[in-house]
Amino acid sequence: MKTLITNVSSLATVDAKGAPSKAGAQMSDIGEIKNGAICFDEKIEWIGTAEEARVAMREGRLRPFEIIDASGKTITPGFVDSHTHIVFGGNRAGEFARRLRGATYQEIAAEGGGILTTVRGTREASLEELVERARKLALSAIRYGTTAMEIKSGYGLTVESELKQLEAVKILKEELPIEIAATFLGAHDFPPEYRDNRDAYVDLIIEEMLPRVVENDLAEFCDAFVDEGYYSLEQGEKILGAAKDAGLKLKVHCDEMAPFKAAEMAAGLGAISADHLLFVSDEGIEAMKKAETVATLLPGTAYFIRMPYAPARKIIDSGAIVALSTDCNPGSCYTENMQVILSLATINMKMTAEEALTAATLNGARAIGRSREMGSLEVNKLANFLVFDAESYEEIFYHFGSNSLKEVWVKGRRLV
Amino acid sequence: MKTLITNVSSLATVDAKGAPSKAGAQMSDIGEIKNGAICFDEKIEWIGTAEEARVAMREGRLRPFEIIDASGKTITPGFVDSHTHIVFGGNRAGEFARRLRGATYQEIAAEGGGILTTVRGTREASLEELVERARKLALSAIRYGTTAMEIKSGYGLTVESELKQLEAVKILKEELPIEIAATFLGAHDFPPEYRDNRDAYVDLIIEEMLPRVVENDLAEFCDAFVDEGYYSLEQGEKILGAAKDAGLKLKVHCDEMAPFKAAEMAAGLGAISADHLLFVSDEGIEAMKKAETVATLLPGTAYFIRMPYAPARKIIDSGAIVALSTDCNPGSCYTENMQVILSLATINMKMTAEEALTAATLNGARAIGRSREMGSLEVNKLANFLVFDAESYEEIFYHFGSNSLKEVWVKGRRLV
Repeated sequence: MKTLITNVSSLATVDAKGAPSKAGAQMSDIGEIKNGAICFDEKIEWIGTAEEARVAMREGRLRPFEIIDASGKTITPGFVDSHTHIVFGGNRAGEFARRLRGATYQEIAAEGGGILTTVRGTREASLEELVERARKLALSAIRYGTTAMEIKSGYGLTVESELKQLEAVKILKEELPIEIAATFLGAHDFPPEYRDNRDAYVDLIIEEMLPRVVENDLAEFCDAFVDEGYYSLEQGEKILGAAKDAGLKLKVHCDEMAPFKAAEMAAGLGAISADHLLFVSDEGIEAMKKAETVATLLPGTAYFIRMPYAPARKIIDSGAIVALSTDCNPGSCYTENMQVILSLATINMKMTAEEALTAATLNGARAIGRSREMGSLEVNKLANFLVFDAESYEEIFYHFGSNSLKEVWVKGRRLV
Repeated sequence: MKTLITNVSSLATVDAKGAPSKAGAQMSDIGEIKNGAICFDEKIEWIGTAEEARVAMREGRLRPFEIIDASGKTITPGFVDSHTHIVFGGNRAGEFARRLRGATYQEIAAEGGGILTTVRGTREASLEELVERARKLALSAIRYGTTAMEIKSGYGLTVESELKQLEAVKILKEELPIEIAATFLGAHDFPPEYRDNRDAYVDLIIEEMLPRVVENDLAEFCDAFVDEGYYSLEQGEKILGAAKDAGLKLKVHCDEMAPFKAAEMAAGLGAISADHLLFVSDEGIEAMKKAETVATLLPGTAYFIRMPYAPARKIIDSGAIVALSTDCNPGSCYTENMQVILSLATINMKMTAEEALTAATLNGARAIGRSREMGSLEVNKLANFLVFDAESYEEIFYHFGSNSLKEVWVKGRRLV
C-alpha cells in the first residue's frame, strides 16, 4: 500500500550528504530537492524528483497505490524533540505571572514555590493524572511537528514518585503513535528532605532508584543536572557511572547556570548528549566534538528565564554536533512547540535555517540514538515527515509564529 | 437571541476600572472575574459572576436563549492589531534565509532586494492577488485571536499602486467578519524613481495621492515613516499636516532606526498613535503622555531584525498609554500572530501579563479610535472576545508558543 507524494515544491531531505561527516554535524546543504517526490509505506522506499518518479512509474520500478499532489508545499523530516520534562503535576502559571510583575525566583522559592510546587504536585498526582496531562502536551507537540520525543522523570525525587513518572512515560510510549524515549532523571534536583544530606540522596539514587528503573526496564537513558547549586562533578560522575554500568546510555544537563566543566565530564563518560551548555567552555566544546557527544541546545529556556543563549555559532563552527529541543517543562520553559525553538535558534542564536532544521531532525534523532531509523528522508528510514503550506523550507522560518504545518506523517500514516 | 457563557474560570474584562485614568493607560488590575459570566447578543448586555447570573436569571432580569458552560476556560477581549502591512506582493523568504546565512540587509538591498522586492511585487500584483494573500493572513490572524485590524498601504509608492493597496483593504473590510481600519502610508519609503528628488515625491503624496485617497474615502488614517534615512521631520510634518487638514487622523512610524524626535512631532500634531519607538527620547515619552498619543510597541520587529527593544517599562512607568501590535509585514516582521507579540512583550520587554493584555486589547482599540466600541468586556461594547483552554489568563503567557485559543467571537457570533 505505497503512497507517492509528488510535485513537492521543496523537499528538504536533510540526508547528510552535505555534512562534513556522517556524524550528522551541521549542514549548510540540507539536500533540498525542488519539485521532489517521495514514495513510502511504513518506511521510505524511494525519493527523487517528480520527473524521476514519472519515469520510474512508466518503467514499472515504482508502483504507488495512491498519488498525492503537493505543489506549493514543503516537506521536511519530522521533528525529534530529544529533551523534555512533560510528565509533571501542579500548576505554576500564577508564579510565572508574579515573576513578570517583578517577584524573583528566589522569593517564590523561599515561599515553597518554584520547583517545589512541581515536586509536590507530581508526588500528589495519580499515575492517571500524570499521563493525562502529559498526553495533552504530547498531542499538541505532534500538531506542531514532533514525531519523536524523549521524556524525563525528575520531579518526584522519591523512589516511588520517580518510578511513577517513568510508568507514565511507559504508558505514553504504548499509546502514542510517535516514538518515545524514556530518561531517568532522579538527579534533577535534591528533594527537600535531603537538603542537608545530599550525598545520602545520591546513594538513594544509586542503590534504590537505579536498580528498580533498570529491573523494570523503565528507561533507556540516565540524566543528571551537573551544575552550580545542583549536582557536583563528583556526584554526577558517581550517578552516571553507575547508570552506565547498569546498561543505560547517558545524557547530561551541563553548564546551564554557571561554567562548571560538566560538558567535559559528559564527553569523558561517552554521553550521547550534553544539554543546555549556556556556559560551556572551549575545552568542553572540543571534548564534545571528539567524543561525538551531541550538544543539545534549548533556546526556549534561555528565552523563558531571560538567560544568555548558548554559544551556538561557536559550537557549530567547532564542528561539534548540535541538536535543538524544547526542554518543555513547567518551570523554565513551558512550550512543546518545536517551531518556536527553530525561530529562537535562528533569530537569537544566529543559526542558519539549514543548521536549525538539521539540529531539530537528524541531530535530534542522534541525541536519542535513533538516527539510523529517523531524522532524515532517506530510503529505508521511517516515513516520518511534515507537510507545510510553504513554497520553500525557508518560509517556515521566515513566517514565524504562524503554524503553517498542515500534515504530520509517522511511519507512513497521516496523524494530523 | 442572547447567549450566556457562564462558569468562566477566569474572565479578564480589561474594563479599565483599575486604570489610573479612563485614557486606557497601563493596568495592573485587569478586572478579572473568577467564575464569571457574560451575556450578549451583538453587544455585551450583562457581565458579572456566575452566581450573580443565576440570581439574575431566577429574578427574570437575564433571559438567555442559550447557556454555555466555560469551566476551565479563560475569556479575554479580542485582540486589536493596530499596526499591520498585510497587503503586499512578492516573496522574501529566500532573502530572509540568506540573512540568516550572514548576508547583510545592505548587500541584499544593493542587489535590488529588500523592500524593493516588495515594491516590485506589489506594483506587479493585481488587486485580486493582493486581496487573496492579505485575506489568508487576516484569516490566520483571526485564528490567533485578532478581532480588529489596521492595515496600511505603503508598498506601491506610485499613485495607482497606493490606491490599489487601499482598494484591497476596502474589499477586505467588506468581506471579512472583523473590524478593519485603513491607513494611507504613501510616505513609507521613497520610491526608486524619486531617490534623488525626494521632495518631489513628498509633493506627489500631498498633491495627488492624498486628495484621491480622501475623495474615494479609502483611508481613515494617514501614516508616515519619520526616521533617519526615511522622511525628515519637515517632510513628515508637511505630509501629516496636509492629511490632518484633509480630515484624516494621524499615526506615525517614529524613532525606529535612530533617535529622531519623531515622537515629539507626532504628539505635537495630535497623532492618535506613535509607533515603533525603539529610540524614543524622554521628551518624546512625556509629549506622548500629555497628548494621550498611544505609544504602539512592536516587539516582533525588534526580534525579527535583531534590534534593541523599545523601552516599554520606561514608557509605561511614565504613565503614557502603550499598545502592542504585530507590525505584520514582509520585511521586518512576518507574523500575524498576536500571541507571539504578547510573549515577546512580557519576556523581552518586561511588561507584566496584565499590561500586555491591556496593550493588546483596550489600548490597541484606542490606537485605532475604537475604544468606545471594543477592546474590553463591558456592557454595551461589542461582544468581541476569545475563549482559551486555560484555567487563568496568566496561563496564556505561561504556556507560550502553544495556541490554546479555542473560540473567537466577534459581534456575538462565533468565528472560530
